[in-house]
Amino acid sequence: MAAPVAVVQGASRGLGLEFCKQLLKWKTPAVVIATCRNPDGCLELQNLAARGGAPGRGTLSLIQLDVDREDEVRGAAERVAAQFGRVDLIINCSAMLHPSGRGETSLRDVSAQGVLATVTTNTVGPLLMAKYFTPLLQQGAGLFGSQPPESGRQHRGLIVNMTAKVGSIGDNALGGWYSYRLSKAALNMVTRTLAIELGRSTHNKVVCVSLHPGTVATDLSSPYLRNVPAHRLFSPEHSVSLLLDLIHTLNMEHTGQAFSWDGSPLPW
Amino acid sequence: MAAPVAVVQGASRGLGLEFCKQLLKWKTPAVVIATCRNPDGCLELQNLAARGGAPGRGTLSLIQLDVDREDEVRGAAERVAAQFGRVDLIINCSAMLHPSGRGETSLRDVSAQGVLATVTTNTVGPLLMAKYFTPLLQQGAGLFGSQPPESGRQHRGLIVNMTAKVGSIGDNALGGWYSYRLSKAALNMVTRTLAIELGRSTHNKVVCVSLHPGTVATDLSSPYLRNVPAHRLFSPEHSVSLLLDLIHTLNMEHTGQAFSWDGSPLPW
Ligand SMILES: NC(=O)c1ccc[n+]([C@@H]2O[C@H](COP(=O)([O-])OP(=O)(O)OC[C@H]3O[C@@H](n4cnc5c(N)ncnc54)[C@H](OP(=O)(O)O)[C@@H]3O)[C@@H](O)[C@H]2O)c1
Ligand SMILES: NC(=O)c1ccc[n+]([C@@H]2O[C@H](COP(=O)([O-])OP(=O)(O)OC[C@H]3O[C@@H](n4cnc5c(N)ncnc54)[C@H](OP(=O)(O)O)[C@@H]3O)[C@@H](O)[C@H]2O)c1
Repeated sequence: MAAPVAVVQGASRGLGLEFCKQLLKWKTPAVVIATCRNPDGCLELQNLAARGGAPGRGTLSLIQLDVDREDEVRGAAERVAAQFGRVDLIINCSAMLHPSGRGETSLRDVSAQGVLATVTTNTVGPLLMAKYFTPLLQQGAGLFGSQPPESGRQHRGLIVNMTAKVGSIGDNALGGWYSYRLSKAALNMVTRTLAIELGRSTHNKVVCVSLHPGTVATDLSSPYLRNVPAHRLFSPEHSVSLLLDLIHTLNMEHTGQAFSWDGSPLPW
Repeated sequence: MAAPVAVVQGASRGLGLEFCKQLLKWKTPAVVIATCRNPDGCLELQNLAARGGAPGRGTLSLIQLDVDREDEVRGAAERVAAQFGRVDLIINCSAMLHPSGRGETSLRDVSAQGVLATVTTNTVGPLLMAKYFTPLLQQGAGLFGSQPPESGRQHRGLIVNMTAKVGSIGDNALGGWYSYRLSKAALNMVTRTLAIELGRSTHNKVVCVSLHPGTVATDLSSPYLRNVPAHRLFSPEHSVSLLLDLIHTLNMEHTGQAFSWDGSPLPW
């Protein structure tokens, strides 16, 4: 059987890096394509790439990709097409709270530039990934997610957009974080719209979902962790292991929806 | 009693222009501040401005404002502050489907540039309006919307963001129109987040809602009207008259929510 091919976009740190590590130890050893802005600066990914090919272990390819740049997204898709010919799973991990690293506390902190930079990475990035990788996902072998017996309801590829609970409009009770919140609400709309377009094909369906990883101790969340009770703060290892279990259950019945790490539906 | 002061942002055509016309004939004659990118090119607004001061009729001031430019939003707020000192109502009307004038039919049509231009006008514009006009709205006399008897629940100003049903994530069953859909979903998050921040003050509350005008025959919708049944297609006159009736009922109980022209709640 062919090896599952997974693209982890935004793999240099945090959840993206952890997805790479766990996918390499996946039941069926996976081909992991890790993309990041600055591969030269990312020793952990380089080490993972160097260790490839051990028995029962997947291999990792490292590709330079700043998801803010449409030409680089297209270039990465061309490289993956030439080298691997198909993709089974894309996980879009890259995101920022705001270029300053801190969400806006109030309107005073809002700037057009800040909003647009955040939307460029958090919303447009995943949409461009879908645009250029869809032909590869439609060639996928359907090796991630769960496949129902009826072939007409099976999928070939799977797109996971990492969303956030604070991106739920209806759930918003605290305010603040304008850029991040609106970028993730917009990303959820991207997920939904992609699911419709990519679910139409009879034989080449692609599932698309938004997933919330919980509150996870990473660079992104680090300024805000002081008041998070310990039992609600996940390690990247724990969050990614839950998310991979969840991804393993996904199929066309879930497409176009948003879920938390525990599989519960996330409101829009 | 002071005259109600209303800012109509994006007033050169379509619903914005019609809001100006109807506000000038409002029960209590209003001071209407019409903003648009190119006042010199907008004869209708110039005529409305020239006709100001007739008995029982409001007055219209015309201000140049490209809502894509943060400096111009700030400048417009400074002018309104100097001339009028307060604002009771802002209606954010400006929007585009996409720079091409047509929503994306499929992923193929998506470009980073197209998405970002659409978000700049449709989402960031209204957010910047809130940023710079909030001090003026907090000085409002509460002359739009309905005021409950308890002073602690009354509002001083009101922000209306024109949203669209196709910006509802949960309601999306057709796909396409990536830029417009995601920009309006993001705008709904802006509405919700603003409502929280602007609802906190004890004495200077500002209500913020998203309103869907129905399918209205304007330049924006004109490429898509062929298949709309006549009874579902509104004239700008009809839509704006319904929306102004609805605006007249709004208060802090409605803040942070989205409604259609008939007052029914719009899902996120
Ligand atoms: N941590 C949480 O509590 C939490 C909660 C809810 C949702 N999430 C979501 O989970 C996902 C992962 O977050 P995280 O906590 O792992 O964040 P993180 O540790 O801050 O990592 C962010 C990643 O995004 C990459 N990135 C940023 N801009 C990029 C660009 N233009 N092109 C390519 N890569 C770019 C960064 O790469 P560089 O190293 O090059 O900067 C880094 O790898 C995000 O979508 C986040 O919104 C996280
Ligand atoms: N028509 C419908 O069926 C419908 C349905 C749902 C929602 N809506 C919403 O209703 C609102 C009004 O739409 P409409 O149908 O009246 O559209 P429209 O006739 O196309 O008018 C759009 C207006 O936006 C202005 N505008 C665009 N970019 C601008 C910028 N950067 N700065 C300032 N003004 C700018 C235009 O000014 P210029 O003259 O300078 O170009 C014009 O006045 C929009 O928010 C739209 O999304 C409309």
